[in-house]
Amino acid sequence: MYRDDSLTLHTDAYQINMIYTYWQQSIDQTPVVFEAYFRKMPFDNGYVIFAGLERIVTILKQLTFSQSDINYLRSLDLYDDAFLDYLQNWHFTATLRSAYEGEVMFNNEPLFQVEGPLVDAQLLETLLLNVVNFQTLIATKAARIATVTDGQPLLEFGTRRAQEIDAALWGTRAAYIGGFDATSNVRAGKLFNIPISGTHAHALVQAYQNDYDAFKAYASTHKDVVFLVDTFDTLKSGVPSAIKVAQEFGDQINFQGVRIDSGDMAYLSKIIRKMLDEAGFTSAKIYASNDLNENTILNLKMQGAKIDVWGVGTKLITAFDQPALGAVYKMVSFNGKNTIKISNNVEKVSTPGKKQVWRITDRQDGKSEGDYLTFSNEDPRQQTDLYMFDPNHPVISKDVHDFNAEPMLHDIFVNGQLIYDLPDIKTVKTYAKQSLDNLWDEYKRVLNPQTYPVDLSQSLYDAKIDLINKTRQHIKEMSK
Amino acid sequence: MYRDDSLTLHTDAYQINMIYTYWQQSIDQTPVVFEAYFRKMPFDNGYVIFAGLERIVTILKQLTFSQSDINYLRSLDLYDDAFLDYLQNWHFTATLRSAYEGEVMFNNEPLFQVEGPLVDAQLLETLLLNVVNFQTLIATKAARIATVTDGQPLLEFGTRRAQEIDAALWGTRAAYIGGFDATSNVRAGKLFNIPISGTHAHALVQAYQNDYDAFKAYASTHKDVVFLVDTFDTLKSGVPSAIKVAQEFGDQINFQGVRIDSGDMAYLSKIIRKMLDEAGFTSAKIYASNDLNENTILNLKMQGAKIDVWGVGTKLITAFDQPALGAVYKMVSFNGKNTIKISNNVEKVSTPGKKQVWRITDRQDGKSEGDYLTFSNEDPRQQTDLYMFDPNHPVISKDVHDFNAEPMLHDIFVNGQLIYDLPDIKTVKTYAKQSLDNLWDEYKRVLNPQTYPVDLSQSLYDAKIDLINKTRQHIKEMSK
Repeated sequence: MYRDDSLTLHTDAYQINMIYTYWQQSIDQTPVVFEAYFRKMPFDNGYVIFAGLERIVTILKQLTFSQSDINYLRSLDLYDDAFLDYLQNWHFTATLRSAYEGEVMFNNEPLFQVEGPLVDAQLLETLLLNVVNFQTLIATKAARIATVTDGQPLLEFGTRRAQEIDAALWGTRAAYIGGFDATSNVRAGKLFNIPISGTHAHALVQAYQNDYDAFKAYASTHKDVVFLVDTFDTLKSGVPSAIKVAQEFGDQINFQGVRIDSGDMAYLSKIIRKMLDEAGFTSAKIYASNDLNENTILNLKMQGAKIDVWGVGTKLITAFDQPALGAVYKMVSFNGKNTIKISNNVEKVSTPGKKQVWRITDRQDGKSEGDYLTFSNEDPRQQTDLYMFDPNHPVISKDVHDFNAEPMLHDIFVNGQLIYDLPDIKTVKTYAKQSLDNLWDEYKRVLNPQTYPVDLSQSLYDAKIDLINKTRQHIKEMSK
Repeated sequence: MYRDDSLTLHTDAYQINMIYTYWQQSIDQTPVVFEAYFRKMPFDNGYVIFAGLERIVTILKQLTFSQSDINYLRSLDLYDDAFLDYLQNWHFTATLRSAYEGEVMFNNEPLFQVEGPLVDAQLLETLLLNVVNFQTLIATKAARIATVTDGQPLLEFGTRRAQEIDAALWGTRAAYIGGFDATSNVRAGKLFNIPISGTHAHALVQAYQNDYDAFKAYASTHKDVVFLVDTFDTLKSGVPSAIKVAQEFGDQINFQGVRIDSGDMAYLSKIIRKMLDEAGFTSAKIYASNDLNENTILNLKMQGAKIDVWGVGTKLITAFDQPALGAVYKMVSFNGKNTIKISNNVEKVSTPGKKQVWRITDRQDGKSEGDYLTFSNEDPRQQTDLYMFDPNHPVISKDVHDFNAEPMLHDIFVNGQLIYDLPDIKTVKTYAKQSLDNLWDEYKRVLNPQTYPVDLSQSLYDAKIDLINKTRQHIKEMSK
């Protein structure tokens, strides 16, 4: 490892190779716009919770090629020295516009936008996508799970199964933003000011060789206690020992409840509830953890499981059923001209031009009507009526009156200068909750949600069709 | 962020809370043994490639609680000052035994073992599992893919879809160990001495607005070129432009081939091969990338696709079809006494005692007979015959003669001192290849591989049965 290791080389080799061409051909400073978006909703969810901005800001603030980066590039024997000098003097001078962390966002709309010299926009693609794809995925998964638990406490327990250290750390932050209440990861608690949670594991019971002695030892040394009751036998030994210790210690401890980590949780939780109630511990909670996700939780609830607090690990922190969000980052403008990426699949054709995303809400109830994409120099707030139509099926349309239009992409860096104050995490979490509150329930259900409208302004739509036709014409000519 | 941030708090809160109990009850220095293993093979594969040791060694060498760690713990108002002083003076004094990186390993056998004071073993559980679970998963996925490509070059392209930065970085290292040849991640190239690979993306073609000009610009500025041919129209524009530029530049460039990233790759690659051959570029290669995994590659090969080099991203770097390896870490000995974790499911009952894993191979052909778990003080090398039986189905058994027995767990740290020299990555990669070579093909096929025998010595088996019975008896008494 290098003392001056940086994240500047955390990029794909082709970015550096393209920049070398741009620099030699003197187009590296050409003004361009790139936008990041994804095409398909993760987990067939109805929305995503955007996350990753704090991490990006922290990295961009200090992004330069270190001496060891330059030495490494030189060792490849691919680039001339003048280019390496150029890189060594490079620093970020572009403009970054982004959705706020915690914002509800949708497919086929820009999550963030980089405007500036081609070199900056090209270099950053890989790093920005790496961070936003993962953090947005986990915040979204967390929100899905929170939809099902409906206000019951949710604990993130996934560190040991996370995809390496950063994923555990930043994943738990994203989970907190998306709706979780606490994490088991102590470092995340320290770095991000997230509440931490956890009492003891099976090992404590193994060390004392029986539940009762282990619980007594724990209760002697802690005020707040949750006993893990399934090391040997949940109903015969674990719960009775927990009750006995809670009775013996009385007010000396806060007996918060018991945790089960195996077995038939629907059945066990009902029996345990009865045992706790009969012992007078009616406010003691039942914690459950064991490969849970939104579906198992929903099913446990349907079966009448008496579980009060949910610990979720693997399935959340890895987004197990879809472990990648496929956001891409495409050039939409080059030297002031709109650009497009053509595909045989019409839904894969990118939408050209530097854009703004407007969230259209009903002025009466504040609820969402849909998102409206425009060129960045259009402003729907100057209109009284808005004609919104589905760009893939233009006959599906509606007229909207008496609406509010709020821009979703905000200046974060302007010409390389950070002009945005990062909010504290509780503000981000609250923002996510409010964003979700403004969304109709039909978009939020975990199974078969309604498709939220993401529409194009007429001029954006016309420009896209026009550019598709021109490009096809151009291909014809090229292939003559 | 803190200047003195450490990874010591990268653990679950319950570990610290248990340690607080151990310390107050003066059992924190009790000698214990913990072992890590997983129960179920990832991807229904026949083996895993163990990885993560270098990362663990690097972290353990310098693991202490920093001042900011202690300050954070103090701020929680849960622990008394003497405990915080104790933590501040803590450093790793345990013994770590582990499989070597690149070793072929199996389910239900220890991958690594921590022996030492209870405090050390308990604190490290989360961090060790976090690293080993992920890196082993990716090395294994890479080896599966390499089984299918059978010697063709494999490139790791996954950074933008990886689960945050560490996963991209350490995942590509694991992929290299498991059988990949190069990565697109420049920082991984720098830090780990892995070959990097990549030429240009669609953005270059968009900047020049047509294939021919873009390829010409790239060829003017690079010696080794692979042209990405699917920005506008692969067969009508991309490939003809690539051939034209290659002809124009002649010996000035190494025209290595073309890359396709979309479309029907079986069909396209066959036509492209013909076009390249007819133009005289018979040694130019066809690179393919687009959500590939071992199954799509196998199918493309079956269809006669003329693809020479495979770029694999999302499906490798996230282990998409099973994004977590479920290794657990269990106490197997406490103060010299064997311990067990009971479960109603017989296959989930842990095997007690401090163990060694022996790889049993045929002395004639060097091929694997199975793994043989013993107490650490047993040595099968002193036997001439070995009776091997399946611990879950003891009637399945065989007698082995004329065998070699090689221990799989090696001293890495002894009483806190690192005594192991980390090999360079090429050595690790070669080691992985040799380990795989010693395995019969039947264990290596990607669909329905044979189950590799992981057997217990008679005394280990007897001790396990005995401890299960004693524990059940104990539970009965506790529940009276």
